Amino acid sequence: MKEKNSIQNNWLARDQESYGRNLFRLPEEELMDSMKEECGIFGMYSEHDTDTFSLSQFGLFALQHRGQEACGISVMNQGKIFNVKDEGLVLDVYKEIKEPENFMGNGVIGHTRYTTAGDKKKYNFQPFFAKNEYDQTILSIAHNGNLTNARELKEELEQEGVVFKATSDSEVILRLIQKNLDLGLRGAIKATMEKIEGAYSVVGITRNKFFAFRDFHGIRPLVLGAIDEKTYVAASESAALDAVGAQYVRDILPGEIVYTSENERGLHSFLVRENCQRKLCAFEYIYFARPDSSLEGISVHEIREKSGEKIWQQAPVEADIVIGVPDSGVPAAIGFSKVSGIPFRPVLIKNRYVGRSFIIPTQEMRERIVNLKLNPIVSEIKGKRVVIIDDSIVRGTTSKRLVKILKDSGVREIHFRSVSPPIIAPCFLGIDTPSKDDLISANMTTEELREYLGVDSLEFLSMDNLIEILGSSDHCFGCFTEKYPVGKGEQAELFT
Amino acid sequence: MKEKNSIQNNWLARDQESYGRNLFRLPEEELMDSMKEECGIFGMYSEHDTDTFSLSQFGLFALQHRGQEACGISVMNQGKIFNVKDEGLVLDVYKEIKEPENFMGNGVIGHTRYTTAGDKKKYNFQPFFAKNEYDQTILSIAHNGNLTNARELKEELEQEGVVFKATSDSEVILRLIQKNLDLGLRGAIKATMEKIEGAYSVVGITRNKFFAFRDFHGIRPLVLGAIDEKTYVAASESAALDAVGAQYVRDILPGEIVYTSENERGLHSFLVRENCQRKLCAFEYIYFARPDSSLEGISVHEIREKSGEKIWQQAPVEADIVIGVPDSGVPAAIGFSKVSGIPFRPVLIKNRYVGRSFIIPTQEMRERIVNLKLNPIVSEIKGKRVVIIDDSIVRGTTSKRLVKILKDSGVREIHFRSVSPPIIAPCFLGIDTPSKDDLISANMTTEELREYLGVDSLEFLSMDNLIEILGSSDHCFGCFTEKYPVGKGEQAELFT
Amino acid sequence: MKEKNSIQNNWLARDQESYGRNLFRLPEEELMDSMKEECGIFGMYSEHDTDTFSLSQFGLFALQHRGQEACGISVMNQGKIFNVKDEGLVLDVYKEIKEPENFMGNGVIGHTRYTTAGDKKKYNFQPFFAKNEYDQTILSIAHNGNLTNARELKEELEQEGVVFKATSDSEVILRLIQKNLDLGLRGAIKATMEKIEGAYSVVGITRNKFFAFRDFHGIRPLVLGAIDEKTYVAASESAALDAVGAQYVRDILPGEIVYTSENERGLHSFLVRENCQRKLCAFEYIYFARPDSSLEGISVHEIREKSGEKIWQQAPVEADIVIGVPDSGVPAAIGFSKVSGIPFRPVLIKNRYVGRSFIIPTQEMRERIVNLKLNPIVSEIKGKRVVIIDDSIVRGTTSKRLVKILKDSGVREIHFRSVSPPIIAPCFLGIDTPSKDDLISANMTTEELREYLGVDSLEFLSMDNLIEILGSSDHCFGCFTEKYPVGKGEQAELFT
Amino acid sequence: MKEKNSIQNNWLARDQESYGRNLFRLPEEELMDSMKEECGIFGMYSEHDTDTFSLSQFGLFALQHRGQEACGISVMNQGKIFNVKDEGLVLDVYKEIKEPENFMGNGVIGHTRYTTAGDKKKYNFQPFFAKNEYDQTILSIAHNGNLTNARELKEELEQEGVVFKATSDSEVILRLIQKNLDLGLRGAIKATMEKIEGAYSVVGITRNKFFAFRDFHGIRPLVLGAIDEKTYVAASESAALDAVGAQYVRDILPGEIVYTSENERGLHSFLVRENCQRKLCAFEYIYFARPDSSLEGISVHEIREKSGEKIWQQAPVEADIVIGVPDSGVPAAIGFSKVSGIPFRPVLIKNRYVGRSFIIPTQEMRERIVNLKLNPIVSEIKGKRVVIIDDSIVRGTTSKRLVKILKDSGVREIHFRSVSPPIIAPCFLGIDTPSKDDLISANMTTEELREYLGVDSLEFLSMDNLIEILGSSDHCFGCFTEKYPVGKGEQAELFT
Repeated sequence: MKEKNSIQNNWLARDQESYGRNLFRLPEEELMDSMKEECGIFGMYSEHDTDTFSLSQFGLFALQHRGQEACGISVMNQGKIFNVKDEGLVLDVYKEIKEPENFMGNGVIGHTRYTTAGDKKKYNFQPFFAKNEYDQTILSIAHNGNLTNARELKEELEQEGVVFKATSDSEVILRLIQKNLDLGLRGAIKATMEKIEGAYSVVGITRNKFFAFRDFHGIRPLVLGAIDEKTYVAASESAALDAVGAQYVRDILPGEIVYTSENERGLHSFLVRENCQRKLCAFEYIYFARPDSSLEGISVHEIREKSGEKIWQQAPVEADIVIGVPDSGVPAAIGFSKVSGIPFRPVLIKNRYVGRSFIIPTQEMRERIVNLKLNPIVSEIKGKRVVIIDDSIVRGTTSKRLVKILKDSGVREIHFRSVSPPIIAPCFLGIDTPSKDDLISANMTTEELREYLGVDSLEFLSMDNLIEILGSSDHCFGCFTEKYPVGKGEQAELFT
Repeated sequence: MKEKNSIQNNWLARDQESYGRNLFRLPEEELMDSMKEECGIFGMYSEHDTDTFSLSQFGLFALQHRGQEACGISVMNQGKIFNVKDEGLVLDVYKEIKEPENFMGNGVIGHTRYTTAGDKKKYNFQPFFAKNEYDQTILSIAHNGNLTNARELKEELEQEGVVFKATSDSEVILRLIQKNLDLGLRGAIKATMEKIEGAYSVVGITRNKFFAFRDFHGIRPLVLGAIDEKTYVAASESAALDAVGAQYVRDILPGEIVYTSENERGLHSFLVRENCQRKLCAFEYIYFARPDSSLEGISVHEIREKSGEKIWQQAPVEADIVIGVPDSGVPAAIGFSKVSGIPFRPVLIKNRYVGRSFIIPTQEMRERIVNLKLNPIVSEIKGKRVVIIDDSIVRGTTSKRLVKILKDSGVREIHFRSVSPPIIAPCFLGIDTPSKDDLISANMTTEELREYLGVDSLEFLSMDNLIEILGSSDHCFGCFTEKYPVGKGEQAELFT
Repeated sequence: MKEKNSIQNNWLARDQESYGRNLFRLPEEELMDSMKEECGIFGMYSEHDTDTFSLSQFGLFALQHRGQEACGISVMNQGKIFNVKDEGLVLDVYKEIKEPENFMGNGVIGHTRYTTAGDKKKYNFQPFFAKNEYDQTILSIAHNGNLTNARELKEELEQEGVVFKATSDSEVILRLIQKNLDLGLRGAIKATMEKIEGAYSVVGITRNKFFAFRDFHGIRPLVLGAIDEKTYVAASESAALDAVGAQYVRDILPGEIVYTSENERGLHSFLVRENCQRKLCAFEYIYFARPDSSLEGISVHEIREKSGEKIWQQAPVEADIVIGVPDSGVPAAIGFSKVSGIPFRPVLIKNRYVGRSFIIPTQEMRERIVNLKLNPIVSEIKGKRVVIIDDSIVRGTTSKRLVKILKDSGVREIHFRSVSPPIIAPCFLGIDTPSKDDLISANMTTEELREYLGVDSLEFLSMDNLIEILGSSDHCFGCFTEKYPVGKGEQAELFT
Repeated sequence: MKEKNSIQNNWLARDQESYGRNLFRLPEEELMDSMKEECGIFGMYSEHDTDTFSLSQFGLFALQHRGQEACGISVMNQGKIFNVKDEGLVLDVYKEIKEPENFMGNGVIGHTRYTTAGDKKKYNFQPFFAKNEYDQTILSIAHNGNLTNARELKEELEQEGVVFKATSDSEVILRLIQKNLDLGLRGAIKATMEKIEGAYSVVGITRNKFFAFRDFHGIRPLVLGAIDEKTYVAASESAALDAVGAQYVRDILPGEIVYTSENERGLHSFLVRENCQRKLCAFEYIYFARPDSSLEGISVHEIREKSGEKIWQQAPVEADIVIGVPDSGVPAAIGFSKVSGIPFRPVLIKNRYVGRSFIIPTQEMRERIVNLKLNPIVSEIKGKRVVIIDDSIVRGTTSKRLVKILKDSGVREIHFRSVSPPIIAPCFLGIDTPSKDDLISANMTTEELREYLGVDSLEFLSMDNLIEILGSSDHCFGCFTEKYPVGKGEQAELFT
């Protein structure tokens, strides 16, 4: 080992003084600098005397990627509602259920949570439920999205004597429906939709009815499926329909309530507002949704592959290999490879267990942890000209680290491609983004950013190309344009 | 929804009688029918007064794929050994540590566990440690592999008065070293290696020394690295060296002990037996190891890609697309695509959260859960002729389900390729395989299996081609040939 | 140790077969065969902005003898009600309170529980509270006694849609008040008292009012005290007034509600029914109440001492010493000694830690445990003629054991005196008694019982003498006469 | 309630500022200012194949008064030793035992703990046990007493490489025996007794032997009993023999080891030192031991009764009634009554649940809590001349409070009698006493103390009279005379 005599690692030669004192935990954010998944919702109702609860496991499990922090379920069983919610993954929470037979009813809603508003305390886990004076749940809802006028509504309701138990905007929806229940369920939802503003896809149950509704722009996704003519499913993504063996029927419409009624069988539809303009979040295609889902009838995988093709056409380059940053960059890299002829290589290995914190005694060591999330196969890239394709650039820190990893591996040229336009503004409609100050594209030109990253070329997919791929401009592009379909564009820092 | 009137799903129309009674949990095996990961070991020692414990997090984290059931660490700090071990992932176990400053010593060993022998009780978690009469740990080891004469040795030792606290073969190694400690550490390890038989890669510490050793055939991997000339690392895979910033030095040799001594600085090497024949497990390349690891200097990724190329050459076919079963089938599919020109499509989506059990009330529902692990993007495969590449076929159940999924998606032709030879015999040397009765290739010819799976063609990589790719026949091919480098080929059903 | 050669103890020579199999736990009933304490209640309200919660500790602590199974507290603080209740002794439950500052309000009620009706689950712990639709407590009560028409009322209420959460008759009181709250608090209590039948002393709070009320016969005790002219206390016994530094004012009247009002300061009184006949439980004087309490102005200690004097007059006997069974038999023995001149000797030592179960492997050993509760000082009684005075004889098992202990100690003559009349009927009004089959005096004449116990004489205090001591027949003597002031004399086996 | 208008209670009118801030817990010491119980030990061995464990429950339960903080048991069963120890009362700890059948062996030792040296952490609970290198217990002891040279011995042993796991002097005894085990068990105990100095009564087991031994002055009690000729019991007090049905044989002698041997049946005796002078702690008779125990053949109850007789003779007084402070003052009061003719009245009621802490928000309230432990029956003492008899006066605080209670109850004259001499020095031999500064008789003459307490007369039993009652001066009177039979009279503040 003689030849290693010269290796000097300051981060090993730690300061004796501070040793063992300044322990801190490296937050997962250090390793995963992307926009954060929002939430997943799932609901199911059967007119048969059947068990929707068991199937809900599969549905929510298929939506696990939309939120890993907590999971909750409410079941309607023989006129009662049973609830469970807790920290952890979907199947962990189901496993906790002491008396699963209680939960085997014919209506169910569930939620996989990633925190976008409200703090991380248990009282903010979903579903949210309302009780009567005898402590019986009479209403339960699961919400994906973000309200922009929650604070005002909350204050208004509190002045009327309503008591809030959580700090989440979703409870505003619950309390409004609860307050208006004497208008009938449909009437109560309608009255609620007329008050609230923002992005919301909601599924819910009462003790004998099931419902789902979506905001006037359809900003967050919500699809409808059926297992047979008496068994309905609503879910954030079509992959959850596949998981329970349901057929895709259609997306729930902007401004639509679908619901069951006591008097008539079947699922009923009611449009609170006619002619709403669709504004489904474009980022669902780019990053959030599963590639095997379709939203509004368009395959997510296909959009991603096309984005790779398009960015080649937009900015062709000579290179030896093309690499996709796993997972969402991979289909784009394959599309890029297909049209460019540059070989696709799966040589960036992602550690799937990231998501927990490390104990780090020194700042020096913190700096060392660059390739825990992504480790390259050096032999495959050394001396090569590499196109690296990522879904987006948010803060820029991960991109910069990735570039360093590649350079340390002896890559000759790096051509960085983002298959989304520059992100210049935060989202107020259900996605957890950094503030504008931390969005690197809000603070640097593309050339400045190219220099900062230290790459040979850098290109973002243009807005025009994105619209062309999506087939229409009827989407929310707020994070690229700072123009939002609803709200004042101010973060509703509701309740902390 | 008129047109869905005819959908009838018997699994929804559950038997009222049995309802809620016959709940069972669907075991993860139903969803993940592969050979099981074995264990990962990691050790590190620095002559500097440094903190190896913090780095061990990264090393073990990089070996998480080799065992997710439990994790343990022993640290040598100022003449004391501190231990922690518990169920859970690496970072969960580190997180539990109440006084991390105790653990910041200059020697560490760790283990990620998947059970191959012994029951799953906590006393079988590793490292195993021996104590003196004052309850102080004086020796701690972490073992990957499986002994074939553990039962006899255990009985022998018990007759000598040794008391065992666990039911794992690894404790036999510990107790033999402990018993022989008056021969000095090196002498004790040598005496132990001369008694035990089977596969073993071991790292260990005493209160002031560090060591690692490997069986006479080097069946389980163990690589050596260095951060600087006074800081040594031993780990199951080279990816763990990358994770701690160490340089790969070489693989530890079959029959070699490396160790530190009290008198002389540096890492010492001692060959217990000269001229051992290397017999590294071939399945490490095919399935277990990370693609970004190299074993005995050969890149795992490269072997996998070559296997895809080779199987095309061995059995070419006309098709529209080639799909790899994630994750290990993907590089093979890309190699296949490269030489065949048939486009590679990443259209089989793996749910990464599999690994927990479901609550299943009826057998009918159990049958339904086919595509929770793997969901295809139907639009990409409908009407296509598909080559599907998997690393191996074990029980055949998953392969059959996968074929069903593809057929249900409207695939026109299915050409199944296994990039390993037929598995006809169980492993007794550290890998958890089903018994021979459950190995489908031990019970069917390839043609029978093709028919059973219902595919248009089926091909296994030939032994000759496998040897050609690996560059030598100096590997353990026991599961393909039923000829083992060591042991009687009988499962050492040691202690249950 | 030669002379002990002949000692043979079959209970030591245990059956090898059954050894270690038939473990059972010796229940405390084996050791403590008395009538069981009922519950203690305490309430306090101050018009000052003061802290009644801290004082409630002392009050409930002074009532600990009335129930050691569980304790609960509800506090009215700034328009909110905070609750805590749990298994354990009073101070253990207070100790659990995480944020005691929340509890420092100006109104409090508390309860020490011994189960008389309903099962021992936590939902039966008191206070019972009612919530509104926002999960806020609006009413909380603590009850001592037993309703005789709870089952009918519960069914009636359930048909009206009221939901019960526990299996205790006390919840019927709560739900009736809750249901009638729109009549105003006083009106709601009045309506409740007009429906319920049986024995009840109740203290309660709403979010801004305090109240206490007592059934139409005043069967269970409830005294009223004051600390100053704005600070009121209600408690089961006067010793609890002493404990908080309050002066005794008077007993709450049968059929009376005392309450605070929003509009006028001070404690108000309202008689729901005029001219109720007092029927305070006679056993409170004989056994339950603390000797330092006074009920209806009569000292408990004095009644007990007089009962000893009276039984001497009723049945004089020649003897050497008089012994009281601790604790309640001691004052009677002293009274007996005073009038008879026979010396009182405190030579029966009570183990105060009784109340937990033993692990007993064999029936033989069970029989051995005779003197764990009461151990005599043999030297003091050997060869003596002994008068032994107990408060009562219930099942007879403890008395028989006690006689055996005395005989084994070499006592020459035993004269047994019960300072209560024979117990021939169970109590349905708040005390836990065995069924008639198990009451030995319901099944044997005094002479038969004398023979069964094996004593030289046996005497019970006569009803006439008991009435003379108490100064009036205005008490409940149901257990002596089988005539109850209220109810059909059938156990309201309400909810199990 | 008009007449109460003038009651003003400053402790109710709390300071708004500090409200809810300065919560503190009133320690039990405030309420129980006596010398503290030390520990109880119990051991049993049977040559029969019997179950001594079940009986040990009764034995330890009978010694519960000697320590309520923790309990531990070690059982010898088929060549193994099983241990359990935990906080709590005896039966609580037994209840925790998961597999009681493991514990059913033919040898057992147990301990009830009150802390006299060492901190209150769990590692200081007894029995203490030594393990071999395979984590098997080979030796277990339970100790009552206190060593005076533990610190020196500990340091000496540590220099020899012995590792201590606790901070109690009892571990020094354990480690010395362990270290000397190659001398044989008897030899090891002898070697230990020749090193240690102080007060010690010890019971112990190895994997196949039982033993008990006592220091050279027999300072702490230890009696020997037998159930049959093959079943031996050793215990702190004879009441524990009664509890298991054993006959008292004799006290173990100062300097004696009793033990079983592998070769010969029966219990063997060995005197390490001949002609030791007995110095049993006099306070055992006065306060610690149960009244139904006999020590060295003398009845504890009898001593207490005689002390009351003697103090009347020493200091007669005219009075109306005599009251004993429960529990130990009661027999003295009865003795006093017998010789004086002044009637004994049991009118001071002790709350038996004292021993837990209160939450106290203000200092004013703290001062209020005077009569929670002892509440008088006012009607019985008002206007009377009262003799009050207590076992001793330690700090004087409780005595002063008691006098205040009596005065507040309208007593005319108070004559205070302590039936022990003035306590002027702390105990270093196993009893928890305050330091000299806090012992009121070390700092005041009797006349000063009489004035401080505010009583009409005050008398302490004289040393001469105490010796006369006890029948000899062969006792430890260290706390009365500051002359100790062993040690330098300095607190061995061993390990904190």
